[in-house]
Order: sequence, then structure tokens, then C-alpha cells
Amino acid sequence: MHIFKEIEPLRAFLDEKRKSGLSIGLVPTMGALHAGHLSLIEASKRDNSITICSIFVNPIQFNNPKDFQAYPRFLEKDIALLTQAGCSALFCPEDYTMQTGAYLQVSFGDLEKSMEGSFRPGHFNGVVKVVAKLFHIVEPDTAYFGQKDWQQFVIIRTLVEELKFNVKLSVVETVREADGLALSSRNQRLTDSQRKQAVVLSATLNESRQKLLAGDSIAGIKGLARNKFEAQAGLALEYLEVVNSENLLPLKSVEEADRPILCIAAFVDEVRLIDNMFL
Amino acid sequence: MHIFKEIEPLRAFLDEKRKSGLSIGLVPTMGALHAGHLSLIEASKRDNSITICSIFVNPIQFNNPKDFQAYPRFLEKDIALLTQAGCSALFCPEDYTMQTGAYLQVSFGDLEKSMEGSFRPGHFNGVVKVVAKLFHIVEPDTAYFGQKDWQQFVIIRTLVEELKFNVKLSVVETVREADGLALSSRNQRLTDSQRKQAVVLSATLNESRQKLLAGDSIAGIKGLARNKFEAQAGLALEYLEVVNSENLLPLKSVEEADRPILCIAAFVDEVRLIDNMFL
Repeated sequence: MHIFKEIEPLRAFLDEKRKSGLSIGLVPTMGALHAGHLSLIEASKRDNSITICSIFVNPIQFNNPKDFQAYPRFLEKDIALLTQAGCSALFCPEDYTMQTGAYLQVSFGDLEKSMEGSFRPGHFNGVVKVVAKLFHIVEPDTAYFGQKDWQQFVIIRTLVEELKFNVKLSVVETVREADGLALSSRNQRLTDSQRKQAVVLSATLNESRQKLLAGDSIAGIKGLARNKFEAQAGLALEYLEVVNSENLLPLKSVEEADRPILCIAAFVDEVRLIDNMFL
Repeated sequence: MHIFKEIEPLRAFLDEKRKSGLSIGLVPTMGALHAGHLSLIEASKRDNSITICSIFVNPIQFNNPKDFQAYPRFLEKDIALLTQAGCSALFCPEDYTMQTGAYLQVSFGDLEKSMEGSFRPGHFNGVVKVVAKLFHIVEPDTAYFGQKDWQQFVIIRTLVEELKFNVKLSVVETVREADGLALSSRNQRLTDSQRKQAVVLSATLNESRQKLLAGDSIAGIKGLARNKFEAQAGLALEYLEVVNSENLLPLKSVEEADRPILCIAAFVDEVRLIDNMFL
């Protein structure tokens, strides 16, 4: 696997591939790779001749500096996993390579009024700026994102549509542990007992989904979820929302949207986790 | 000259050229072409094998709907001028081709606090969104802009740097009439008597520049300019600013910046004109 830390050698490598007519897939990550990321690599390999994984823990998308410092970093292990997975190249720039000015601010109106946009001020400005940079550096045919970050996916899709980026987007289903916990790099920060508690996110989504399908109200399932989290020490529910998956507007009833999605964010002690499920 | 109204045929045409190793220059315009635009075409032809001119009167960069409606449109004459100038291709999309959603808003902090940013709310959001679209559609090696829109150039340069667009920018000196009036598509809206009055913009810049070089204060030249405009019926000065040409911050004294620039905006009856000059 080729490893690039600087932009120009990567661009030169990719220009050669493009000139030979080879298609390029991009899997943007923050490293600490797990089977969820590897499923993105697999999807890219199925569709493209060349797969680039990027690993960059992007400081400007962290609203909480502690969370940025605590974010797991295992570059050597990541390189071994990517090599084994048959990834063509890794782009793992240093901070100074990706650093730019801070005049430009991007915002997405209603798409970021709820959920991550509301609880992590500045988060999507940071995400979008780094994703736009990666798109301009790699110029991929297709970029791959996980469904776990659904709001992020909708916002990046909007960015691509509104600015006519020449890139296709693909969203890949969330990979889960046997007990249902969504894979996340942040799971690596959990102790054994926290790991057991963390299943509450996917369990709550599952139960809420069943109750909604059985006719319960959105207000009702939110109340139940809040009670459930309050009953366990160490857990704190940030939000459980049922939104229209296309425009991310919160729903009062599931009939208001063709394709509602349930989204949850919660702290297991200091570790913030998110998950979602389509109704 | 090839003429494209749709994105995909243009992309296909350009992909062929790129595969043959030909470099591509882009001259984005709103049409009603004059010798200023043609100097951008000339600059692009000097640097590139292929020159694309785009003509699109972008509704979202007009804060004033009357100004949008009154903006001169002469597509047939423009096509003749571009053909004569040896432009390789014209991209002249209809509104529906360039229309996208309106979730994304971009802002540039201090760079748009003064001058056009202050007097035309939403203007640079509109400019930047259309320029980013054109960059993603054409993917030029170099794009050419006129110095007359200096604040626009600084903002587009910031966009390119902060999002690592793979494009070089070139700024081309303003072309002027014999009496000093900067060429502008909007000049075509002036009656003969208004045309004579319009020289006041460049004359004020010239005089202010001379006075600053002779040691006059910025406050002093602003007062003189205001008096000069108030003395003539049909003229209204919107602003005369002396700013740092790099960060666009207004200066109290010309010593505060390495490269100050004088910028002016004024109405000649209903026609709004701008101009600028480096100190």
C-alpha cells in the first residue's frame, strides 16, 4: 500500500491512475479503524480500481478539545488493517498539511438545527471543510460514508449537490457487534462495564422502532427512553429524535415523512456515542 | 467555437482535452462582454491550450431584483466576440441547469464586512456558490478574474486556499476607456450624459491616490470625495474606502498596510458602478 503524507505526491499518483482510465474510490476516516471502516473499503474496492483511505483527526470538527485529545489514534495498526484489506493507498497528512485559514464558514440551515448540529456547535462547518478539501485533493469518482453518521451524510450530499462537485456518494450500512452496538472508534475508549452498558443505544432504537410500528407516539417513545437512561448510573441521553431522513426535520408523527429515521446520542460516562435506525 | 448549455456534454468535451494533456483556462462572466472580458480571454489563451468562457447572469448574487432584471444581456453579440477572440468553448447554461438548493450558506468573516459585502447583503454567498459550481463543472487549470472586482477576487482566492481547490487563479488588470472609466457591462446602461458623469469614479480614485501619496489623510480624501459627489445631481457615492488589499480591513493611515488599495462604489442615477486602484 502506498502511503502519502503530502498533497502533491498523492495528486501526481492519482493523475497517473486517472490517465490510465482507472476509477478512484475515497474512504475518508479519522483512523482507529474497525470493521465498519473496512466495510467502506470493501464497497469502494467493489466499485473502483483504486481505493484511497484518508486518516485525519480533524481538529476543527471537535467542539470539545478533551474529546479531540482523547480520540483514539492507532496509525500503525490502521496501516496493517488497510494493507490486509487491499486498500491501494493511504493519505495520512499532518495537521499543517490540512491547515488553512478560518475566514470561510459554511452553514446548512435547517439541516443542522437538530441533533449533532445542535449539540455540537461548529461541528459540521469543520466536517464539511475537511471533506471538501479531501474531495479537491483526491478528486474521487465515488466517496463512501457510513450510515451511522446519517446527518453528516445528508449534509455532505447537500454540499455535493449545491456546489456540483463531480463525485458520487455512497452510504454503507452500519456494522454492529453481536449484541447490536454500532461499531465506532470511540468504543475503544470504553471499559468492560461501560461496553456492556453501551448496548443501551441500539436497544433503545430497536425498542422505540417496534413501539412506533405498533402505533405508539413519538412523544411516548421519547419519554420511555428518557426514563430508561435516567434509571442507570453513568448513562446520559443527549437526544432521541425521529426525523424525516431526507430533510432532517423532527417529526411529530411518523406519518409525516416517507422515510423516518430514529437517531440517538448519549454519553456512557465520558464517551459520547451516536446511532440511528430507519423506521 | 463549441457552445454548451448542459453540464455533462461540457464535462465530456473537457475530459477528452484533459486526457490529451491539454491545459484548460476558465473565464467566468455574466456576459455583455467588453474589452475587459476579452483581456481575460487573451490571458487565458496565452497560458492554456483550451479556453472556456462561461456566461451566466447568476440570480443569487443580486441583492436587488431590479438590478438583476436590468443587467444587460446580449448573447448573440457575445458569441460573435468570443468566436472572433478565438475562445475554444462557451458554457451558457439556463437558470435551471445551475439552480440548486439553498441550504448551504457561505460566509467570509472580516473579508466581507466592508464595501460590497456590507452594501450588497448575500452578494458573496451568491458569487462563491456559482464560482464553486463552475470550478467543479469545468475543473480548469487556471481561472481568470478582473482586478475591478478586487474584493471578489480576494474572497475567491480565500475559498480556493481554504478548501484546497485544484485550480490556480490569475487576476488581470482593469481595462479603461480613454477618459479613465473602468470597463463594465453596466456601462451599457448609461445614457450619453450619464456616461460623461461616470468618469467621476476613476477621477476620484486618481485624485485621492495623488493626495494620499502627497501625505493627505484617509479621512481627508474621504471628505473631499463626498463633497465632490454631493455637488453633482444624479451622483451618489456609496463608499470610498482605503483598505489593506490582502485582508480588506479598512485603514486609518496608508502606513498600516504594505499594499493599500482604494475602492469606490457609486450610483450614476440608477446604475451602480465600482472601481479600484492600488496606492
